[in-house]
Amino acid sequence: MDIKRILVAGDLAHHIKNLIDIDTYKQAFRFLEEEQVTDDDLQWANAYVAFKPTVNFNFHNIKWVHSFGAGVDRFLFNREWNQEVLLTRTVCSFGQRISQYSLSYYLRDLQQHDFFKNNQAKKEWQPVTPDLIDGQKVVVYGTGEIGQEVAKMFAAFGMKVCGVSLSGKKKATFHDVYPVSEQQDVLSGTDLVINTLPLTEKTNGLFDEEVFEALTNAMFINVGRGASVVESALLKALEGENLRLAVLDVFKEEPLPEASRLWEQKNVIITPHISAVTTAEEAAECFVETLEKLENNEVLTNKVDTVKGY
Amino acid sequence: MDIKRILVAGDLAHHIKNLIDIDTYKQAFRFLEEEQVTDDDLQWANAYVAFKPTVNFNFHNIKWVHSFGAGVDRFLFNREWNQEVLLTRTVCSFGQRISQYSLSYYLRDLQQHDFFKNNQAKKEWQPVTPDLIDGQKVVVYGTGEIGQEVAKMFAAFGMKVCGVSLSGKKKATFHDVYPVSEQQDVLSGTDLVINTLPLTEKTNGLFDEEVFEALTNAMFINVGRGASVVESALLKALEGENLRLAVLDVFKEEPLPEASRLWEQKNVIITPHISAVTTAEEAAECFVETLEKLENNEVLTNKVDTVKGY
Repeated sequence: MDIKRILVAGDLAHHIKNLIDIDTYKQAFRFLEEEQVTDDDLQWANAYVAFKPTVNFNFHNIKWVHSFGAGVDRFLFNREWNQEVLLTRTVCSFGQRISQYSLSYYLRDLQQHDFFKNNQAKKEWQPVTPDLIDGQKVVVYGTGEIGQEVAKMFAAFGMKVCGVSLSGKKKATFHDVYPVSEQQDVLSGTDLVINTLPLTEKTNGLFDEEVFEALTNAMFINVGRGASVVESALLKALEGENLRLAVLDVFKEEPLPEASRLWEQKNVIITPHISAVTTAEEAAECFVETLEKLENNEVLTNKVDTVKGY
Repeated sequence: MDIKRILVAGDLAHHIKNLIDIDTYKQAFRFLEEEQVTDDDLQWANAYVAFKPTVNFNFHNIKWVHSFGAGVDRFLFNREWNQEVLLTRTVCSFGQRISQYSLSYYLRDLQQHDFFKNNQAKKEWQPVTPDLIDGQKVVVYGTGEIGQEVAKMFAAFGMKVCGVSLSGKKKATFHDVYPVSEQQDVLSGTDLVINTLPLTEKTNGLFDEEVFEALTNAMFINVGRGASVVESALLKALEGENLRLAVLDVFKEEPLPEASRLWEQKNVIITPHISAVTTAEEAAECFVETLEKLENNEVLTNKVDTVKGY
């Protein structure tokens, strides 16, 4: 692919500029904040590199788009994609990050951190035995790179790890994988459900009443996308006995609006989309790797299927 | 060893009674709360099974003492032991329990749970990137069964795991093991220090100013024994820049007295000696296993060296 002019846009642009030695590349670069990007810049570019399209985004001569995020719904969901344009995404430590985020909140709950913290404030010595993670059951939605890393980590602790994916295709890291159409079969007796799925038409609103009602006293972690969860169904599950705790890192609208009921909802922990952050260093590294593979006509492992949406 | 009469004493006694089928053993049993144990009971017994000696404890005809805890300092520390009496201890899921306890608090800190919780209360959306556990350095004091399990788990996360022990004898699960006399060499640049050591004359007051002063912005977890820490040195380290957080599960006096400064000390998390609880089921299982091995003259893996103290 013949890429001559690369437009890097958004918050990360100036960090990336400092991290790559542009003189070593034959391409011309522009590094711009999102609001600085004009239609002229878009016409100029063969390649567009950013977290998301600018408001005025237009393909013009762009042949390659590279996403700084792992999730590419901001490029594909509810948008028309030009099928001649290559879309690649950042693949880096997301699996590790999401694993450690999820584990930290699951252990926090099993080890009863809040109970002991409250007792400390009252100077109360009240021993209770924390639950061990071993032998519990987790269902991971999404069996791609990230889901597999999460699965591997929980399995190492002796948990039974099942997967749910659109296809239900078996993967070695999972005890078993179910297609979404058969998800009801795996949810009963589950202690923890983690959503790592990308947002596509098929995952939009996937976590509905039917899903939550199949659970009993479970914990739900959403590190995928907010729009995959039907909020009213989640709230109902939290108020009943289906869910004991929800840990939410992603929301339909971000930042989460001040008016959202979720902020004050009992048994909800909110974090501001930090479970799988792309650091500037990792973003630069993955972008440069992808560019060099393109130059050398090597196989891309981070190419997005723009029809599937991931 | 010819054991005919077994006295099981303390809080767990009546649970143990329900968990073992005494009719299958040739021995006679007495199950008593600690305060019910008379000198007659102690004279009657060949074997004494409990968390600790009763106040009126006397060896009389006792040939075997089995501890429900892994730590046997309540039997040995500052006490005269009859060298003809066999001492065994409970070995069960302590390693797992202490690993998961330690990991839960380390991840809580790296993932900035408190920061995000405070922001949630203020409905503030303020992303910061959690630190990954990979590449950090932990020093585990104690390289026995428990220390090794802790080391194995942290190493699986890509941490550099060093050990400190009395002997400094190398162990495969550790990157390196240092003798206590050379501990200063390993402490610099350490992110996390975990004490799993038993209380003996050599570990009493081991964590003093010199140890803490070798650390910078580190986290300290004590799941060994409270008396191994010089409290004034710990407080000084927390008030300066040596320690950013101490997580304490064990104390010189337990329950921790209401007057203790530790309850309200900034950057101290207190839990009531719950990191390595012996459940009644595990206590019963380990006791029965030890009894059967004794009967069959099999090798005991849980025999305590009463001179070393562990």
